Amino acid sequence: MKNTATLLITCPDTKGIVAAIANFLLEHNANILHADQHQDAENNLFLMRVEWDLAGFDLTAARFHEAFSPIAKKFNMQWQLKLSQQRTRVAVMVSQYDHCLADLLHRYKNGELDCEIPLIISNHRDTEGLAKFYGIDFHHIVVTKDNKTEAEATQFRLFDTYKIDLIVLARYMQILSSDFVARYPQRIINIHHSFLPAFIGARPYHRAFERGVKLIGATSHYVTEDLDEGPIIEQDIARVSHRDQVEDLIQKGRDLERVVLSRAVRWHIENRILLYANKTVIFD
Amino acid sequence: MKNTATLLITCPDTKGIVAAIANFLLEHNANILHADQHQDAENNLFLMRVEWDLAGFDLTAARFHEAFSPIAKKFNMQWQLKLSQQRTRVAVMVSQYDHCLADLLHRYKNGELDCEIPLIISNHRDTEGLAKFYGIDFHHIVVTKDNKTEAEATQFRLFDTYKIDLIVLARYMQILSSDFVARYPQRIINIHHSFLPAFIGARPYHRAFERGVKLIGATSHYVTEDLDEGPIIEQDIARVSHRDQVEDLIQKGRDLERVVLSRAVRWHIENRILLYANKTVIFD
Amino acid sequence: MKNTATLLITCPDTKGIVAAIANFLLEHNANILHADQHQDAENNLFLMRVEWDLAGFDLTAARFHEAFSPIAKKFNMQWQLKLSQQRTRVAVMVSQYDHCLADLLHRYKNGELDCEIPLIISNHRDTEGLAKFYGIDFHHIVVTKDNKTEAEATQFRLFDTYKIDLIVLARYMQILSSDFVARYPQRIINIHHSFLPAFIGARPYHRAFERGVKLIGATSHYVTEDLDEGPIIEQDIARVSHRDQVEDLIQKGRDLERVVLSRAVRWHIENRILLYANKTVIFD
Amino acid sequence: MKNTATLLITCPDTKGIVAAIANFLLEHNANILHADQHQDAENNLFLMRVEWDLAGFDLTAARFHEAFSPIAKKFNMQWQLKLSQQRTRVAVMVSQYDHCLADLLHRYKNGELDCEIPLIISNHRDTEGLAKFYGIDFHHIVVTKDNKTEAEATQFRLFDTYKIDLIVLARYMQILSSDFVARYPQRIINIHHSFLPAFIGARPYHRAFERGVKLIGATSHYVTEDLDEGPIIEQDIARVSHRDQVEDLIQKGRDLERVVLSRAVRWHIENRILLYANKTVIFD
Repeated sequence: MKNTATLLITCPDTKGIVAAIANFLLEHNANILHADQHQDAENNLFLMRVEWDLAGFDLTAARFHEAFSPIAKKFNMQWQLKLSQQRTRVAVMVSQYDHCLADLLHRYKNGELDCEIPLIISNHRDTEGLAKFYGIDFHHIVVTKDNKTEAEATQFRLFDTYKIDLIVLARYMQILSSDFVARYPQRIINIHHSFLPAFIGARPYHRAFERGVKLIGATSHYVTEDLDEGPIIEQDIARVSHRDQVEDLIQKGRDLERVVLSRAVRWHIENRILLYANKTVIFD
Repeated sequence: MKNTATLLITCPDTKGIVAAIANFLLEHNANILHADQHQDAENNLFLMRVEWDLAGFDLTAARFHEAFSPIAKKFNMQWQLKLSQQRTRVAVMVSQYDHCLADLLHRYKNGELDCEIPLIISNHRDTEGLAKFYGIDFHHIVVTKDNKTEAEATQFRLFDTYKIDLIVLARYMQILSSDFVARYPQRIINIHHSFLPAFIGARPYHRAFERGVKLIGATSHYVTEDLDEGPIIEQDIARVSHRDQVEDLIQKGRDLERVVLSRAVRWHIENRILLYANKTVIFD
Repeated sequence: MKNTATLLITCPDTKGIVAAIANFLLEHNANILHADQHQDAENNLFLMRVEWDLAGFDLTAARFHEAFSPIAKKFNMQWQLKLSQQRTRVAVMVSQYDHCLADLLHRYKNGELDCEIPLIISNHRDTEGLAKFYGIDFHHIVVTKDNKTEAEATQFRLFDTYKIDLIVLARYMQILSSDFVARYPQRIINIHHSFLPAFIGARPYHRAFERGVKLIGATSHYVTEDLDEGPIIEQDIARVSHRDQVEDLIQKGRDLERVVLSRAVRWHIENRILLYANKTVIFD
Repeated sequence: MKNTATLLITCPDTKGIVAAIANFLLEHNANILHADQHQDAENNLFLMRVEWDLAGFDLTAARFHEAFSPIAKKFNMQWQLKLSQQRTRVAVMVSQYDHCLADLLHRYKNGELDCEIPLIISNHRDTEGLAKFYGIDFHHIVVTKDNKTEAEATQFRLFDTYKIDLIVLARYMQILSSDFVARYPQRIINIHHSFLPAFIGARPYHRAFERGVKLIGATSHYVTEDLDEGPIIEQDIARVSHRDQVEDLIQKGRDLERVVLSRAVRWHIENRILLYANKTVIFD
């Protein structure tokens, strides 16, 4: 089983950052497996992802913090360390359409998604059987105009109980409150069934059909206060023609949604995503 | 050299249309090369394109009208007949960016675009050499806020003089007046450098960069009264990443613009496009 | 529920075919929903697909044969009629990799595949749970060098018992005998995990990795006597880079295989595929 | 004008390489603009590209060699340094099809290809006008079975005279001798009009048509001894259908060839390509 550490760093760009990090890792006998960095000239930002084998590395996670702090301070870094053996704990929220959920669960079981999925929450009962088949706890929480606050409170308790790190909205057709969004910054991933920023809001396939576009799309993004305005993680498109009715767009779109959401989830749990300026850097 | 006729038909859908057309063509000894039809159930519309060899066909273009009229009347058809030997006469309007123009001219010379391009109009002199190289008349017409009406009047005279059927805006950075647009309905094709309806208006690559999209696009469309709202003919996209700056988006976008515009022009001159409900049917 | 008939026709190209068919359908009061035709000039072939609503049509399927025979004879047609209410009965054969099977079953349940899937056959037990979840009979038939003939005989009996029309090899890792293939002409669909004709045979992802290709592919095709040489139904590709190891190619490939196989199955059961000259015409 | 240095490095993977390079660059006051590295676990190889601003850097190119040698020796590196102001000198060889040449020249003039193109060699006269339009020397060298050695000797002399660094075969339909290939290792780029390794050799579009593939491709690669077996730099594909005849494949293929060849040339002149094990690493 893989036993690596991944460090994600953002800081103002200046000379000597790479040398400082490389020397630190060498000093502690790290065997670097992957390193990727990005300079954003316009924002004068340095962004880096480095992953190393923990075999031979002479610092525990606990001691890493202390040892790395002087460097982090010197370069004014924001950083996070992630250990491959501390698997991200994911909750999936879903309504009636189950194609994204079924896809995520299959990838999870196959080992393609190296995380834990202990919890599924739905405002419908349609996906209960699927949850059971994969041995995942299913909680049915009806959401209405009147009970939204309570319903979310119940959801928060479940996230706490299951020690959830990441919430995936796999075609969950309820709008989250500001409170919900603020509570899990950069920890909620949504799939929107259009090529954002085209067709923000409801019924994107219907509006794409009416506009007569020749391509349809899907977009996975982090959820922020503004609906469909969060940082985009991944997008993809499919070709359509005049022969396609709305139903065909919806069907072709399902294939996009599955792939585009699953990539976002995988990149998140592999610590490949850095956020800045409402954009994502995906370290591949 | 190809010697065919193409008939484009739109009418309310009802029984017997195909039989009526097929019988008519058989009666006059047409050898059908391609036929394609589309039913739009929602709008109860029948749309058809049929192309036949003129060898052996016993009607001239002049007599076709009279002979076909009873059928057209019976089914309440809108129709147009096009002969491959009456090549569409195209004017290209362009500003400073010459990549779409250069591409169109190369395809024209290669025989990929089976039309005549006798006229290039520009509000700059940058592309004059290119026009000369391909032996095409070049007219430099400066457009300002104050002279717009006169400038367009000059353009109209040129279109008349050169008997222009189709106007292609190959990155022409001036907004046409309503009068101009109304004068050439479904006869002006524009290339917009975004995936419409995303980034309508100015500086789409800059806005795509700011939004952090993972794909950029280009859209060719007929020009109508509402800017960037006309019927879409073709779209395509390219993948971008955090490594791409605005300049990279612009460069990748040029490859899209070339291809997306040239396809629209080709389909138009091959009579493959039927318009309805602000959408296009592309008969391939 | 949809109640339509679909007619697929191949015959030598000559004048009057479309008129004859259109008149025949009109005579019997058919309401044509879709019609598409293709002329292959090189092979002088006419190919057509026409689908009509059975409401109001005045021939039963039984009487259709008799009524249409004179036309079929006159134009030397090969033809087949399919009724939407006689749903294709599909058997899926699978080994250990279950991603294509899981995908097909999910689409089946969703109504995206308008067929019956009463039978799954595997030489492993891995997918038994999945079959059970979807309520489909699962038969475990071990195949060895020594028992191949008997194993196939058992398979044939099952196909007969379940009245199977189409056999889908969803990553079934056994080579079928010539006898098997001959028994189900144009009724076996396979998914090959490469962009055929590149990497025919075993371990295509490993060979793609060694060759250093920048795109990987998947191909669905009808199975014929020659391994991986049958008529191609659909292909798609995904981009890879030097960062991708064989495992990454395999993972990216799974997404291709799922989509490419499911499209082939859908087109087959919707009677959209015509075969000729070892190629397919896909009427979309 | 850009004034940067790019260093490409390949060496056995071991601890401390990044630290050594980063320290070296920091010591000499380099402002790193881009750095990208790749570890090939299977081959135990470390590959890196690093680009820095020369403003403030305290070594001349001449002195760099001496200063960097100890590090290069210690880690057993193969390396090359390239200065942005020493622009690659490119010769294009072409036969009758001019679409790739026209595309390269347009990108060159636009500034998209940051190189010098002083020389075009052709075995036909068709592209002489194009060369003249862009102000590039054109040499017409007829190649026959009998004069091949002499013809190539003439070509070699021209490459020497024009101090050519890179030879681009832009649909040059003559097979180069082993001697030619050996003389310019990793300095000849070819465009092959298929998705290699499918359809190696002659007439790939015709064979793709016969095989009935649903996608066609193009591949740019370095030329090595074995025809069409050299390291692949870039590939792309386009969708085709039963409606496409060989001529349509050829036309759609031209768009692929243009883009796929131009990317390879750009990446080469920007020093983004590292070769190993008959594969390329493209640092983007």
